[in-house]
Amino acid sequence: MKMVIIRHGESEANFENYWTGWLDVPLTTKGKEQARLAGEKIAKADIAFDYAYTSVLQRALITCQTVLEACDQLWLPVDKTWRLNERHYGALVGKNKEQMATKYGAEQVKKWRRGYYEMPPLQEANHFDRRYQQLDPQSIPHGENLAMTVQRVIPLWQDQIAPLLHDGKNVLVCGHGNSLRALVKYLENVPEDQMDKIEIPNATPVLYEFDEKLQIIHKEVL
Amino acid sequence: MKMVIIRHGESEANFENYWTGWLDVPLTTKGKEQARLAGEKIAKADIAFDYAYTSVLQRALITCQTVLEACDQLWLPVDKTWRLNERHYGALVGKNKEQMATKYGAEQVKKWRRGYYEMPPLQEANHFDRRYQQLDPQSIPHGENLAMTVQRVIPLWQDQIAPLLHDGKNVLVCGHGNSLRALVKYLENVPEDQMDKIEIPNATPVLYEFDEKLQIIHKEVL
Repeated sequence: MKMVIIRHGESEANFENYWTGWLDVPLTTKGKEQARLAGEKIAKADIAFDYAYTSVLQRALITCQTVLEACDQLWLPVDKTWRLNERHYGALVGKNKEQMATKYGAEQVKKWRRGYYEMPPLQEANHFDRRYQQLDPQSIPHGENLAMTVQRVIPLWQDQIAPLLHDGKNVLVCGHGNSLRALVKYLENVPEDQMDKIEIPNATPVLYEFDEKLQIIHKEVL
Repeated sequence: MKMVIIRHGESEANFENYWTGWLDVPLTTKGKEQARLAGEKIAKADIAFDYAYTSVLQRALITCQTVLEACDQLWLPVDKTWRLNERHYGALVGKNKEQMATKYGAEQVKKWRRGYYEMPPLQEANHFDRRYQQLDPQSIPHGENLAMTVQRVIPLWQDQIAPLLHDGKNVLVCGHGNSLRALVKYLENVPEDQMDKIEIPNATPVLYEFDEKLQIIHKEVL
């Protein structure tokens, strides 16, 4: 019962320091290379997955397939789900973090980034995109605080990942800074005011091993 | 109701002229570039897929994801199935076609390649590979004639692709020379002795459009 979580490699937005949320920004060349190296670490650790999950955003999708290719497991079933998308940053999407700090103050930007219940300003139109067309429009956010992200990530764990682990399967989860932070909060019982202590660096595979009660018995950065 | 079929780009085996079957050979650099160009043709034809199918062999898997990336549909659900694998060439796998022609005669090699009921010499051990572990071992061939390949491709059409098309969805199918030839035989009612007239070149998207009775109303090489 192993689960490896991995955040996407460096994206153009990480590089240029603006908020992305559900914006579908590409990986940089460095980001793709990071993903390949991560896959080689997984191959070296000899982890055989049974199933993979990724968000529906290309920085995670391409990280996922690059990792699977590098560990020769490209043939695995991959579930692509909006529940692993990055936190939806509302009207902050596309805005440069430093410029917003100059405009609204560093304190406000820090709250937007890390405050558990701090809502970003909402986006008027929510994402009209074919990839979300099968969702109830009401479940597509116009902006999320971290609590809302946690709330929509956890059902994926409860309904899909946990049953697979229970069944003795190994699972790869490719996501984003905040969707993975949400998962880690749940698994490690991190208090709401300690969320900024959960570091999720780009393209760094973290291995969790579980006992039959799905308690963590081992955690290791690969 | 559109279906695009596409054979993988040039693989190292196409380049070196040996039989592969279920051997998991990589694409060449040219093969990846062919797949990207095919994806751009699909983007230009403005085809929005709802679902994609590919074999579990990396030359088709990587062709599939490269095509989807190039037409910005990487977020689509992709079903990876052994039913789209290349015809299993038995003990011919890994053998050079010209060398075998010298050894057994050009006529025999032609029969192995194109004879509908001509069995290749069987492979002793069948493929023991994690990707086939959920199959009944009896359904994993030690070698196939073209008739057997047709027989295991058609259920994918009947049970999965046809219902999606019936439902108004558009489907991408990434496969191999003989698994796609099998599909074309079924769809176009090609007689058994005319199979070698079905040409399936590398990385060339072929668009089929169907009416409500799933009769072909349009066929076009993109």
